[in-house]
Amino acid sequence: MRESAPGIRGGQQRFEVTRFDSGDARSSSDQVAREDALQLMVNGSPLAILLRTPGADLELALGLLHAEGVISESGDIDFVRLAPSGQTLLPSTSWEIRQEPESENLVDVHLRTLLPEGGLGWQRTLPSSSACGLCGSTTMEAIRQFHQPVEGRMVWGSEILFSLPDLLSASQPVFTTTGGLHAAGLLAWGATEMKVAEDVGRHNAVDKLIGRALLERLLPLSNACLIVSGRAGFEIVQKAAAAQIGVVASISAPSSMAVLTAETLGVTLIGFLRGRSCNVYSHPERLGAVVELSPPELEGDS
Amino acid sequence: MRESAPGIRGGQQRFEVTRFDSGDARSSSDQVAREDALQLMVNGSPLAILLRTPGADLELALGLLHAEGVISESGDIDFVRLAPSGQTLLPSTSWEIRQEPESENLVDVHLRTLLPEGGLGWQRTLPSSSACGLCGSTTMEAIRQFHQPVEGRMVWGSEILFSLPDLLSASQPVFTTTGGLHAAGLLAWGATEMKVAEDVGRHNAVDKLIGRALLERLLPLSNACLIVSGRAGFEIVQKAAAAQIGVVASISAPSSMAVLTAETLGVTLIGFLRGRSCNVYSHPERLGAVVELSPPELEGDS
Repeated sequence: MRESAPGIRGGQQRFEVTRFDSGDARSSSDQVAREDALQLMVNGSPLAILLRTPGADLELALGLLHAEGVISESGDIDFVRLAPSGQTLLPSTSWEIRQEPESENLVDVHLRTLLPEGGLGWQRTLPSSSACGLCGSTTMEAIRQFHQPVEGRMVWGSEILFSLPDLLSASQPVFTTTGGLHAAGLLAWGATEMKVAEDVGRHNAVDKLIGRALLERLLPLSNACLIVSGRAGFEIVQKAAAAQIGVVASISAPSSMAVLTAETLGVTLIGFLRGRSCNVYSHPERLGAVVELSPPELEGDS
Repeated sequence: MRESAPGIRGGQQRFEVTRFDSGDARSSSDQVAREDALQLMVNGSPLAILLRTPGADLELALGLLHAEGVISESGDIDFVRLAPSGQTLLPSTSWEIRQEPESENLVDVHLRTLLPEGGLGWQRTLPSSSACGLCGSTTMEAIRQFHQPVEGRMVWGSEILFSLPDLLSASQPVFTTTGGLHAAGLLAWGATEMKVAEDVGRHNAVDKLIGRALLERLLPLSNACLIVSGRAGFEIVQKAAAAQIGVVASISAPSSMAVLTAETLGVTLIGFLRGRSCNVYSHPERLGAVVELSPPELEGDS
């Protein structure tokens, strides 16, 4: 590999590689998506080690703690320490002062409250054994007890819906050069600008978006739609529901547990959103304007 | 959604969906990759909850425990209990008796030894703070201490290398219908048949393969090559190295930490393996026959 200096820029790092192409071998270089370990601490004690693309570490930490039910708003935080002996951030001052400092791979979130016993959130609530492993009904009962159903009833039109993949890919600078990052985008109803986060981990990208919204005191996100570049599994839907996001769209496939969770928690789950087509797996009522589309548009790629 | 019965078959589940296509909305159905929670217990105590595609739960549990350094061979296991009051499996009898019983979402592995303190493996070894978060040098020092370098020096020829993606996709029945599963394949040097596992989680697919090899007493896998359908992050390389797999190939992109770990542990890491081309990020010496390919082949897709 032999890392070429200066190889690190933002979310990527350049390495020397051997490139094979149709029988020809030559030295080349390649931009690779950055991944490194982040120690997440709460109240000074280690909670988890995350593998993530460095950058927006504060947002990632807060977004994860929100999804897990540890914090629900900015006011739950006493202060945050970035790096072992690093900068201390207070919610009473502007979070913006930090201007993306290097966290040195450690974020320590001090709460105004105690950490709930038993570790992180949704894992606590899942039953140790499921009487019906096949349909997940016991698991869904636990999910229902842990989460508020999503209330927002904003209806999204077809033009906005089908524009989401283009809005997302227009804001993926690192993916374009590395091919190695997942992206997530958040679009408020009526807005034209999408907020986008990239990360080697699909879940991290969603946590960074929701963590940023928490810092900006924009939660709950009842009027927003989330789009993810990868597959939509249970945890994507769970994180969206915790932030009261009503519409979750994926360019790729959902999992069965994502569908069951979306149905249970009142989330509209959309998969295979490509061109002018998609599948809606739950709660299609938020896409009323799409249903009423008539006559059929001719330019669609079926 | 409204699950259509009988909707569950192996790794997939059928749901009713609303299909939008070029302005036309209609009811349809879609096969979705199954995902459900698995409670992993060790010596009767809960260790982790995994989200996985049901099936090969025993392999998944053992593969994960192997990657984390908790077990190194079949003989480390006293017995395994599947389901809360379910079947007990002994390593002295054939593991094959089980014939994929439903685990009811619980696997309890009883060891002949005590569980190492401090939880699972590689997370224990990563430093709480990294002096050099940019180049990961402190993290790599910890990785080096925790893992044996990979010793196998088997050299792989170009025809085998470039055939790996086709061998993998030929064995992905559930992906074909759902589009929602990751696959991993293990090919022994000189063999023609690839062993393949599918899962909603990329890491799970690798764990299932290595767990199966552990049950069959095939570890270490010094003469095998691993191919994954998704991106190659740190954990893919770490799991392969723990099983002494010398070659890891991905159809997609690697991460920076995967490259650094592969270089550190002596793993040949290959990315963007498509058609007759690829990038080699570390230890190209295992691909000697590819380097010497001459003259350039003409049918390659560059």
